[in-house]
Amino acid sequence: MTRNPGNDPRLVVVRESPLNAETPLELLDDYVTPTPLFYMRSNFPVPGILADSWHLVVDGEVERPLALSYSELVSLPARDLTVTIECAGNGRSYFSPKAQGEQWRYGAVGNAVWTGTPLRTILEIAGIKPPAVEVLCVGADRGTLPDGTPEGAFERSLTLETATAPDTLLAWAMNGEPLSPAHGYPLRLIVPGWYGMSAVKWLTRISLLAEPFTGFYQRERYVMVPDGRDSESGHTRTTPVTRMAPRALITSPVDGARLEANRARISGMAWSGLAAVEKVELSLDGGATWDLTRLTGPNHRYAWRHWEYDWTPETAGSYEVVVRATDAKGNAQPAQASWNKLGYKNNSAHRIGVRVEG
Amino acid sequence: MTRNPGNDPRLVVVRESPLNAETPLELLDDYVTPTPLFYMRSNFPVPGILADSWHLVVDGEVERPLALSYSELVSLPARDLTVTIECAGNGRSYFSPKAQGEQWRYGAVGNAVWTGTPLRTILEIAGIKPPAVEVLCVGADRGTLPDGTPEGAFERSLTLETATAPDTLLAWAMNGEPLSPAHGYPLRLIVPGWYGMSAVKWLTRISLLAEPFTGFYQRERYVMVPDGRDSESGHTRTTPVTRMAPRALITSPVDGARLEANRARISGMAWSGLAAVEKVELSLDGGATWDLTRLTGPNHRYAWRHWEYDWTPETAGSYEVVVRATDAKGNAQPAQASWNKLGYKNNSAHRIGVRVEG
Repeated sequence: MTRNPGNDPRLVVVRESPLNAETPLELLDDYVTPTPLFYMRSNFPVPGILADSWHLVVDGEVERPLALSYSELVSLPARDLTVTIECAGNGRSYFSPKAQGEQWRYGAVGNAVWTGTPLRTILEIAGIKPPAVEVLCVGADRGTLPDGTPEGAFERSLTLETATAPDTLLAWAMNGEPLSPAHGYPLRLIVPGWYGMSAVKWLTRISLLAEPFTGFYQRERYVMVPDGRDSESGHTRTTPVTRMAPRALITSPVDGARLEANRARISGMAWSGLAAVEKVELSLDGGATWDLTRLTGPNHRYAWRHWEYDWTPETAGSYEVVVRATDAKGNAQPAQASWNKLGYKNNSAHRIGVRVEG
Repeated sequence: MTRNPGNDPRLVVVRESPLNAETPLELLDDYVTPTPLFYMRSNFPVPGILADSWHLVVDGEVERPLALSYSELVSLPARDLTVTIECAGNGRSYFSPKAQGEQWRYGAVGNAVWTGTPLRTILEIAGIKPPAVEVLCVGADRGTLPDGTPEGAFERSLTLETATAPDTLLAWAMNGEPLSPAHGYPLRLIVPGWYGMSAVKWLTRISLLAEPFTGFYQRERYVMVPDGRDSESGHTRTTPVTRMAPRALITSPVDGARLEANRARISGMAWSGLAAVEKVELSLDGGATWDLTRLTGPNHRYAWRHWEYDWTPETAGSYEVVVRATDAKGNAQPAQASWNKLGYKNNSAHRIGVRVEG
C-alpha cells in the first residue's frame, strides 16, 4: 500500500483549529469519495501516533485483558465494507435560529471502502464477562472544549448488541490505503448506519463496562435537546443521536445554475442509516407535486445510492427543485427537520433554485 | 468511478494474440495488485461489448428466465471481496519435460478487490427448478483453438453448491473501478479459492442444467491428465482442476541477487484455495533445514498473505533459498509437483539462488 495523499485544497474549512472541513456539494458526485476530499471533523487536534509504540488496550469486564499491536490487529481476519458516514451536525448551518456547533453546510458526509476486522472478533478473543453491558471506545484525541468542559478524551460507548454486530468494524484502511492521520490512523471504529460521532478515530482503548456510560460525549453531546422544558419535571428531555436519518442531496446542477431548455439531468445521492433507500422523489415546483427519480449505480447496504432524473423543461423561468428520500421502513425525509439546541439531524429536504433559459 | 488505466508496459507477454501476459515477480509485492499490473489470460480475443446493448441471460432450469441489463445488475445488493486469482497454468514453464500450454513463469497470479452481487441473488430471482444440478457460465469470448477444437464460447459450469455459496460473485468492479475490457467488462464470475479458469470473463449467459456439463473447457481442459494410461480400461484417468493448491513465492530478493552480509530481509506472499495459510517455512540450505517466517499484513479469507523473514547471514557465499506454504487443513506445498500433460498446478516449492558478499 502506498501513502495517503494530503487533503484536497478544495475542501471548505469550517474551523481552522482543530481542522474541521467539508466537501463542496458539487464534488460529492463520485460514488466512492476520494480520501483527500473526505470531510474531516474532530473536537481536538490530530494526535501524533507512531504505530510501533501504539497498542489497542482491551480491558474492563473481560476474561483476558489485551494489548494488541498494530501488526497483530492488521493480521486478524479482514473485511471490506463500503459505508457512508455523515456528521450528525451536517446541515446545521441551515437551522434557524442558529444552533450551536460547527456551521456545516451539506458536505459533512462521504462514502468510503473501509477495511478492518469485526469488533466482535477482538471481544471474542478477550472474552466478555457477564456483567458487561456496554463497550466504551476511547480515542487518543483529548483536550478541553471552548465552553470549559473538563479535559478528557473523546470517548463513546456502544451497547453490547451494536458492538457485537458482524458489521461493526475496527478499520485500519480507507479506500485501500492505511488510514491517514486525519482520518484516524492507526485504527477507527466504523458503526455502519450511524452518524459519524460513533466512528471514533485514533482508537486507543476499548473498555467493557458494567454500567451504561455517562461521559460528556454520550450524555451532553450527540443528544437531541428540544427547545423547551419538560412541563412536569422541569428537566430537558433528551434522546441520543444514533442512526442516520434519511436524506437526499442534489449534487448537479448547483444552486443558482442556468440550464438550457429541453435538456436537463438532475442527480445526486441519498442514504438512510435506518434501512435501504426505497425511493427518491423530486419536485420542480417547490414541493407542490412530486415525481420518482431513478436509483442508479452500486447498492451497498450501508452506503448511499445515486439517483438521477431527466427533465425536459417546457417553459423558461425560475424553478425551485426539491428532493426527498424515503427508506424501506417508511422513514421519510421531512420538508423541515425539528430544530434542536445542538443542531443535529437537520435532514430538511434539499432545495435549490435553477433558471431555465428561454 | 473513473476509467480504468491501460496495461502496464512492464507486463511480460507470454502470447501476443490473444494477449496473454504475466506480472514480473518483483512487481507482485503490493498487497492489492494494481489493475494495470494484473495478469491477463484468455483463450480468445477480448470481445467488444457495449454495456447499453448487453444483457445477462439467465435461462435453462429456472422458473423465470431473465435478461438483466447492466444497470439492473449494478443496482443489486453489492459486496466487496478481496480475492487472489491464480491461473491453473501458473508455473507451467518450470515443468520438465515441457507441458503443453502457455509457458507461464510465476506471475499469472494477482490479488484484487472485487465488487459484485452474489450469483445466488440472481438464481433466487430466477428461481431454481428442481431438475437443475449445475450452473453453466458462458463468456462472450469464442473461437477455435490452434489444435482445431471446434468453434465455441469459453464456458464452464459450477455445481449448485458452489454456485449458491454466498461468496461466489458476479463482479462488475475491480479495485474500485468498473472492470476493464481485458479483465471481463462488463461482468466476471469470481469463485473465491478457485483457479482462474472459473473466473469466466465477459459473462453473457447463465444456464441451469439438468445434467452435468461436458463441454470442452470442462472435460478436455482444466483437468489433470497423468502421464500414462489406466492399465485396466485403457483410458486416461483425469481429475478436474478446482481450488488453488498452496503456494508461497519469494518476491524479494530476486533470483541471483547479491546481498550484503549481516542484513537481509526475505519476503513474499502465500496462498491456498483450500484453507487459510497457516505457516510459511523458509530454507537457506536448499531444503535441508527449515525455519518459520512471520505472516504479516492483511488477512482476507480468500486472499494471499504476506510473509517476511529477517536473515543475518554469517558467512559469505552462495545460498539456495526455498520457501513452502502449509494451510490450516494441513495441505503442504511439495518440493516437486506432479507432472501432468496439460501442465496445471505446478506448485513446486519456489527456490532462488542468492550470493552474500564477503
